Amino acid sequence: MKKSSSLLDEPLSKEEPAEKDFIRVFSHVFQMSEKPLLSGSEFDDCAAVRLDSFCRDLSAESLTFSTDTVRESSDFPKSMTPWQKGWMAAAVNLSDLAAMGSKPIAFLFSAGLPAGFTLEDAESLAQGIQDAVSFFGGEVVGGDTEFCKELTIAGTVVGLSETKCLTFRKNAVSGDLLCVTGAPGSAGVALSLLLNDIKTTALVSDSFLKNLTEPFPRIAEGLLLSKGGAVTSMIDTSDGLAFSVHELSSLSGVGFEINERDLLNAADPKALEILEKRVLQEQGAKTQNNDNKNDNGHLEDAKTVLLQNALYTGGDYELLFTVSPNKIKEVEEIFRTYNESGGPDFKKLPSDGKSGRYPCRFTIIGKAIAESENVIFRQSGSSEVRRPLLKKGYDSFKNYK
Amino acid sequence: MKKSSSLLDEPLSKEEPAEKDFIRVFSHVFQMSEKPLLSGSEFDDCAAVRLDSFCRDLSAESLTFSTDTVRESSDFPKSMTPWQKGWMAAAVNLSDLAAMGSKPIAFLFSAGLPAGFTLEDAESLAQGIQDAVSFFGGEVVGGDTEFCKELTIAGTVVGLSETKCLTFRKNAVSGDLLCVTGAPGSAGVALSLLLNDIKTTALVSDSFLKNLTEPFPRIAEGLLLSKGGAVTSMIDTSDGLAFSVHELSSLSGVGFEINERDLLNAADPKALEILEKRVLQEQGAKTQNNDNKNDNGHLEDAKTVLLQNALYTGGDYELLFTVSPNKIKEVEEIFRTYNESGGPDFKKLPSDGKSGRYPCRFTIIGKAIAESENVIFRQSGSSEVRRPLLKKGYDSFKNYK
Repeated sequence: MKKSSSLLDEPLSKEEPAEKDFIRVFSHVFQMSEKPLLSGSEFDDCAAVRLDSFCRDLSAESLTFSTDTVRESSDFPKSMTPWQKGWMAAAVNLSDLAAMGSKPIAFLFSAGLPAGFTLEDAESLAQGIQDAVSFFGGEVVGGDTEFCKELTIAGTVVGLSETKCLTFRKNAVSGDLLCVTGAPGSAGVALSLLLNDIKTTALVSDSFLKNLTEPFPRIAEGLLLSKGGAVTSMIDTSDGLAFSVHELSSLSGVGFEINERDLLNAADPKALEILEKRVLQEQGAKTQNNDNKNDNGHLEDAKTVLLQNALYTGGDYELLFTVSPNKIKEVEEIFRTYNESGGPDFKKLPSDGKSGRYPCRFTIIGKAIAESENVIFRQSGSSEVRRPLLKKGYDSFKNYK
Repeated sequence: MKKSSSLLDEPLSKEEPAEKDFIRVFSHVFQMSEKPLLSGSEFDDCAAVRLDSFCRDLSAESLTFSTDTVRESSDFPKSMTPWQKGWMAAAVNLSDLAAMGSKPIAFLFSAGLPAGFTLEDAESLAQGIQDAVSFFGGEVVGGDTEFCKELTIAGTVVGLSETKCLTFRKNAVSGDLLCVTGAPGSAGVALSLLLNDIKTTALVSDSFLKNLTEPFPRIAEGLLLSKGGAVTSMIDTSDGLAFSVHELSSLSGVGFEINERDLLNAADPKALEILEKRVLQEQGAKTQNNDNKNDNGHLEDAKTVLLQNALYTGGDYELLFTVSPNKIKEVEEIFRTYNESGGPDFKKLPSDGKSGRYPCRFTIIGKAIAESENVIFRQSGSSEVRRPLLKKGYDSFKNYK
């Protein structure tokens, strides 16, 4: 968010901006930091970096790679700013590294810009990318710009790891505890409200909406968890927690059972409060001429919606991981130390950048079981109600606009 | 081009294919080779590779990165096959590594697929990417698929280099000889004919069109030139030779003068022959009722068009590099040895894969001068005609359809 003087303070051509104008703006924003970059992509066919500039704190044994595209019609609710779109483009890629426990070293993107996208928009977008990469680690080492029918940002991230610290999806074993960072469901609640009308969005603060619009990849947490060696498998929840559980399940060859009460306990109380108000609002509308208002049901209704959002909506970018019960103390210690450390350098972010992201708690929400089924259960008196966990989640092919 | 059994031999859903169907096809094509890949992106959030799997023949000191997007409306003449589009998406990125003298290790892409793109198209496209990456080096380590208004492939390539061998654009000095690999102008001639009518395309063989539709990045040549240490600066000619000369000029702080005759000598005689026939055809059409046919002018006209294509059209993906005159023998020796070696493993390519690409010659087309101007000159009797070299070339923002 630290902003150098804007290139746009200088006069720019009044005409429709051309590729070179966008490149000029992007190059200005992506000033390389003091790292010994051998060449930037604005000077040569490629950017080049010395590996040893990233290897002071780990041996450079393995590279990790991921690519993910975000675009206007399927990823950006209409209230999002260009800065948030840039931030998101970097963050969704960085989250994949977090889930492997890898350290980001380089980010590249290809931006398809629609007609009407201004140089000011481009500068904000680039600043969002730069701020995310600068905060979570690495350098923006390449970019490509062209016109496109809708704003589309294809990002690629490269990370570095000690091989023994990489954490995969495949090593969960029966009996492992299933844990999740942060507050699952918050992004889904924010999205479901944004997709409804203004009356409901009035229930949500800007800060709460950031759970959706400014995803916070758990890079620091992923590195600490991988390094510790207690975690047997890990994945992010970007496509929805249920979908991620199914991925861990099929790659590890175990099933999972999730305790509904524990998952609700992991959620942000603010999310439940928002949903309760919404349920009451809707009930109020329905029962305006009808006094049969159910005073007890609204909390249960809100919980049901929250569970749906936590399990199936996606957009949370939390870490879902498994730990042997006899190592759970190590994980608790990792989070205790991390939360006492002050965390990453939040001075690089806006003043409310920590909000909801740090300190970071984790919650045990279930465990791996020998059966191949994935279920969610609730205690109901002395008996248990078990429902299958659906394999559904965010589907980028469905536009939500 | 080597094709494993097609996944499409199995019955696929008759409905409009969904994202998962495309991913299934892509995953099938991008089978990882025997390299010790720790994880593929189809299993985990990221792909992970051990650096030492690439470091047997070089020390892993520096990483190189580049990203480039190709799309239907600006990069694919309408006769191109899905296989060629995939090949091109990888090749244009690999060419950036070639120009730095870096060894490709990983390729990632994000494919935006338009409505009507079939699973058969997707399989061919993926095979084109896989064949290029497999031929020139590295692994396909990640891909992302979504729908898009037009076919768009954003590629990212990562390379590995010994730091001392990396070749930049900035170190040409006055007096250096300016050299180019291959036959500049061939892609431009192919494009200009394709953009005209069927009568003229009948002049061109499929094999000649491949200069445009199946770009051949000079990876092996770039690695050998960089390793030799004789080359002071290097760039590829993808945006047009003149544009690349201006880039070397501005980064190195020298000017260049190009000898028109030498540049014409570098071109493929077949290109000149095609253009001559075309000029004759056009003159024939004009002078059908007019006996004033100019028998001597057509060769000069063809040469003029060939020069324009070599300088300004782009699409050639040759290497443009500078060498101190006292080291030119070393470069000659590099090419002699390379051309006697049999070159890369052409068995991986279709039977005519070598055609026009190997053996690879290089031509001295000019030299660096102390003045900052960039010119092209021709000997005319005892005097010289000097024209400024325009800074223009391929502009991805102009659609040619």
